Amino acid sequence: MRYHTRKIVKPEDLNPNETLFGGRLLEWIDEEAALYAVIQLENKRVVTKYMSEINFVSSAVQGDIVEIGMDVVKFGNSSLILKCEVRNKLTRKTIIKVENITMVNLNAEGRPSPHGKTKIEYVKDRLSQN
Amino acid sequence: MRYHTRKIVKPEDLNPNETLFGGRLLEWIDEEAALYAVIQLENKRVVTKYMSEINFVSSAVQGDIVEIGMDVVKFGNSSLILKCEVRNKLTRKTIIKVENITMVNLNAEGRPSPHGKTKIEYVKDRLSQN
Amino acid sequence: MRYHTRKIVKPEDLNPNETLFGGRLLEWIDEEAALYAVIQLENKRVVTKYMSEINFVSSAVQGDIVEIGMDVVKFGNSSLILKCEVRNKLTRKTIIKVENITMVNLNAEGRPSPHGKTKIEYVKDRLSQN
Amino acid sequence: MRYHTRKIVKPEDLNPNETLFGGRLLEWIDEEAALYAVIQLENKRVVTKYMSEINFVSSAVQGDIVEIGMDVVKFGNSSLILKCEVRNKLTRKTIIKVENITMVNLNAEGRPSPHGKTKIEYVKDRLSQN
Amino acid sequence: MRYHTRKIVKPEDLNPNETLFGGRLLEWIDEEAALYAVIQLENKRVVTKYMSEINFVSSAVQGDIVEIGMDVVKFGNSSLILKCEVRNKLTRKTIIKVENITMVNLNAEGRPSPHGKTKIEYVKDRLSQN
Amino acid sequence: MRYHTRKIVKPEDLNPNETLFGGRLLEWIDEEAALYAVIQLENKRVVTKYMSEINFVSSAVQGDIVEIGMDVVKFGNSSLILKCEVRNKLTRKTIIKVENITMVNLNAEGRPSPHGKTKIEYVKDRLSQN
Repeated sequence: MRYHTRKIVKPEDLNPNETLFGGRLLEWIDEEAALYAVIQLENKRVVTKYMSEINFVSSAVQGDIVEIGMDVVKFGNSSLILKCEVRNKLTRKTIIKVENITMVNLNAEGRPSPHGKTKIEYVKDRLSQN
Repeated sequence: MRYHTRKIVKPEDLNPNETLFGGRLLEWIDEEAALYAVIQLENKRVVTKYMSEINFVSSAVQGDIVEIGMDVVKFGNSSLILKCEVRNKLTRKTIIKVENITMVNLNAEGRPSPHGKTKIEYVKDRLSQN
Repeated sequence: MRYHTRKIVKPEDLNPNETLFGGRLLEWIDEEAALYAVIQLENKRVVTKYMSEINFVSSAVQGDIVEIGMDVVKFGNSSLILKCEVRNKLTRKTIIKVENITMVNLNAEGRPSPHGKTKIEYVKDRLSQN
Repeated sequence: MRYHTRKIVKPEDLNPNETLFGGRLLEWIDEEAALYAVIQLENKRVVTKYMSEINFVSSAVQGDIVEIGMDVVKFGNSSLILKCEVRNKLTRKTIIKVENITMVNLNAEGRPSPHGKTKIEYVKDRLSQN
Repeated sequence: MRYHTRKIVKPEDLNPNETLFGGRLLEWIDEEAALYAVIQLENKRVVTKYMSEINFVSSAVQGDIVEIGMDVVKFGNSSLILKCEVRNKLTRKTIIKVENITMVNLNAEGRPSPHGKTKIEYVKDRLSQN
Repeated sequence: MRYHTRKIVKPEDLNPNETLFGGRLLEWIDEEAALYAVIQLENKRVVTKYMSEINFVSSAVQGDIVEIGMDVVKFGNSSLILKCEVRNKLTRKTIIKVENITMVNLNAEGRPSPHGKTKIEYVKDRLSQN
């Protein structure tokens, strides 16, 4: 799993218990899944279809830095199944794991559509082929 | 299930496909679950511990009004298990369902702690007892 | 009056005195009035035209839960007059009352236009008629 | 009346009719009133107590620039009464007027407290006296 | 230099050191430069092209009020060069200075385009000429 | 240079010309510089002291994905000098470069303080030493 996006936990990210709000974490994960899918599928029209169960393993407090890891589980025909882990950047302690985030590739009419991709591609390789 | 909080879908709530961003929806659900638990448990120190799998059944577009329904599945010892449905206010079409959202009651040290509640209470009844 | 939408008071909702910022409260009220009008008039093109005087009766602090109540004062020809009360969810103490919020129904050109409604309708009844 | 703060109308400031959201305007006015009072009363503990009726005279669209004017109506004992006008910066067309915004000066216990001010002061003059 | 827009420093504007976040300050400056250019050039299609080096001279804490000053350095052919100073409203202590912010005037195709302006104009004078 | 954090350009990130707002970009850069410094210096009390001149080389539009690269120029005694490049994730076209972002390490009193670091460290190596 590769970890890219990082966030500092700020006052507006806290729940009434003053720890990182679960909903904010899910928002970050979904945004990262969406941009990961846009990059892999080379299509901006992707939506989240399914998320498997979520365990909030540990939390984070204001000023903590978290990093969001994303990996591919499977390339479907019109879908892309991802998994995700968010952890504390400095302690590497897991905060949350999601085993299956299913993103769907849409066509211009907003209907599921084959994306023709079968494996992870790197932008570097795509660009060097041109 | 009772539906309380309502939201208008705004430009900042949209994904790259211009439909309601899944992460925003999850943020709304978690906030509603948190405040529902704070009301029932009469304690501000509650956190989200678990969310069961999530199916994004349909979506919403800018200007749509959605309402968030919440119900109790079970009062645990130090937990409160909720279920949630978000639907389009005008068509009643389901947007998303979550069968189990487990909220945990914490004490002042941030540890799980019995809440002593066993059934849904209404603020009206609590106040009339005083 | 029926109370629907609920909000948790968060750090970003506070004024320099660390109590709930009046402007945030007015923003919440106007949003609730707008969505209430959209539901009743079945038209997304509604705007706020007038708000009567506003007394900030009491305040709220971080972590408090408030609920926003809305009721119809009168169905005009192209307008809908609402009244609003915001109160603390757990103590039922009034935070603010607004006696007259006038919403105007617009046509596609943005001009006031008759809405044809004369009484409160429930979505449930509308849907059962089809 | 002196006009200071300026805002560009952005996508997140629009109502479902795609014009400037009334609630956002009220949020801007209240924030400007609060900072104006903090400057005049030299005390950060000020709160909004009352706002007189509000007419939304005209609106604004995305990309418009608005400016917020504030003036003193009266220095009370523990209050400061302001009036406000928001207008389009380029056309000077009035968008909204509020004749009475009553701000209250609080002490460290959060109770209304005399502020000892009787007229508008300019920071320049205050600083030159030291 | 004339100071117009004012901001209260809020919790969401703070860095991990609990002082005003530099990035938020730069966001405020760029927005003020953009709206200043829109007003002077009477064209909404303006973009930031260049900002000279930035010294963070002093900082600000929650509840402080800052004001943003803007002045014209030079009217270019299709550009407008501004300078900016942000200071604490009550102490007049400088927080940040930027000597050169170059804004570019674009045509409908998004290309740099002459703006025909050579000196600062006041809206009042423009309107009185009609 | 290593690229970590990624962002999708959303409606609220656009300037009046409907391209990525320069101020938002600077906010993202400063936040990334701050968290990079917090990680390297193992201290949450870091602030931005200086940013060298900024050229906005190209822009981005709604739905684009950008990535933010950060590298160390020099470890000072109480400072850390970084450089930054933001580019379009899919085309690798540079959007902005900043050659010198000087972060300062503070002690508990908020004064510059030696950080004792002389080279880039990886969290993995730090953790394996324990």
